[in-house]
Amino acid sequence: MKVSVVKNILAANDRLSQENRELFDRNSVFVINLMSSPGAGKTSLLEAMGRELGERLRIAVIEGDIQSTLDAERIAATGLQAVQIETAGVCHLDANMIRSSINDLDLAALDLLVVENVGNLVCPAEFNVGEHRKVMLLSVTEGDDKPLKYPLMFKESQVLLISKTDLLPYVRCDLEKIKEAARMINPQIRIFPISTYTGEGLAEWHNWLLEQAGQPSS
Amino acid sequence: MKVSVVKNILAANDRLSQENRELFDRNSVFVINLMSSPGAGKTSLLEAMGRELGERLRIAVIEGDIQSTLDAERIAATGLQAVQIETAGVCHLDANMIRSSINDLDLAALDLLVVENVGNLVCPAEFNVGEHRKVMLLSVTEGDDKPLKYPLMFKESQVLLISKTDLLPYVRCDLEKIKEAARMINPQIRIFPISTYTGEGLAEWHNWLLEQAGQPSS
Repeated sequence: MKVSVVKNILAANDRLSQENRELFDRNSVFVINLMSSPGAGKTSLLEAMGRELGERLRIAVIEGDIQSTLDAERIAATGLQAVQIETAGVCHLDANMIRSSINDLDLAALDLLVVENVGNLVCPAEFNVGEHRKVMLLSVTEGDDKPLKYPLMFKESQVLLISKTDLLPYVRCDLEKIKEAARMINPQIRIFPISTYTGEGLAEWHNWLLEQAGQPSS
Repeated sequence: MKVSVVKNILAANDRLSQENRELFDRNSVFVINLMSSPGAGKTSLLEAMGRELGERLRIAVIEGDIQSTLDAERIAATGLQAVQIETAGVCHLDANMIRSSINDLDLAALDLLVVENVGNLVCPAEFNVGEHRKVMLLSVTEGDDKPLKYPLMFKESQVLLISKTDLLPYVRCDLEKIKEAARMINPQIRIFPISTYTGEGLAEWHNWLLEQAGQPSS
């Protein structure tokens, strides 16, 4: 009974997700679903994207938070357009929430839409929102055993950003072990080690985004 | 409809949780539900408890993981008794899972039972498992805005361990801001800043545990 309810919820979500995707395609906007544990650096990444790509791509952010508008305020400060979803306790964004918030955006005037999911390494991976690509962050402070312990998000994502590499000297974390485990779960996953603090890896990540959004990379 | 299903699930969980709690009380075992984001240091904390308290308290751990038995192996290596629950994708432990795993433990021979929940700062806070106290970790690498963004776990927990304080010099995180925000949400919350790397704060945390488990503190 419980299982069939869950299945129905996921099937309904997939239908709505497909409708969102068609809407994005009609408007030629490239959409990523950005996911990670709390505090892995999603919002800092968006701040860097605002600074570095804001002149070349028309970017908007749908900001998912359980409570508070702190992140939307940080995003808006970079000049990117930000729409806030407060989930009121729900641990992930779903296609219906995205559908409702799209009305606040002029999709035809966008190149890139980033859906910043709720900080949670588990549940968001189960819910498509209509995105073209799932992009996840794992910070080096979380430890190199995480792909094996939380495999679904690594399996579902097309890109893994290994964040906070500036902290590698101070933590017990083997970068190669993360890459190896992630590729064991998902051989096709693209991996970019990055630090928004030192700037390491951001150029490669931004070039990937420019290519995906149909712009010549620098 | 969806809401009423969720309500029924939570009500059923609360009934089972109450039964678990009565079982724990009959056997005079003190039970904590240990929760945090992935990689905040739950298992390292248990390793330290095994080293420092293993001679004074009879401790067992119920280890919740979505997949893998990596943590149970780490715990067993410290000499503590460990029982593994693999949730097969489920993002939290519930009272029924704990009930099933209790059969593998001799409760009458224990002083302290630690339920190490799935790494997730959201969902575990909604499900009582029969614990006497909820104890959460927040690592300083997650950032000082987390109490305001993920308030439920801070509200439900009796103890907040602020972990990885050895990394404070390298991250943008204000310890006082975490404490202030946590106390705004939950004025009664006990807060221990700790580092399993330097040992900071562990004596205070272990004394609290000894007191709660009815042993004289050192």
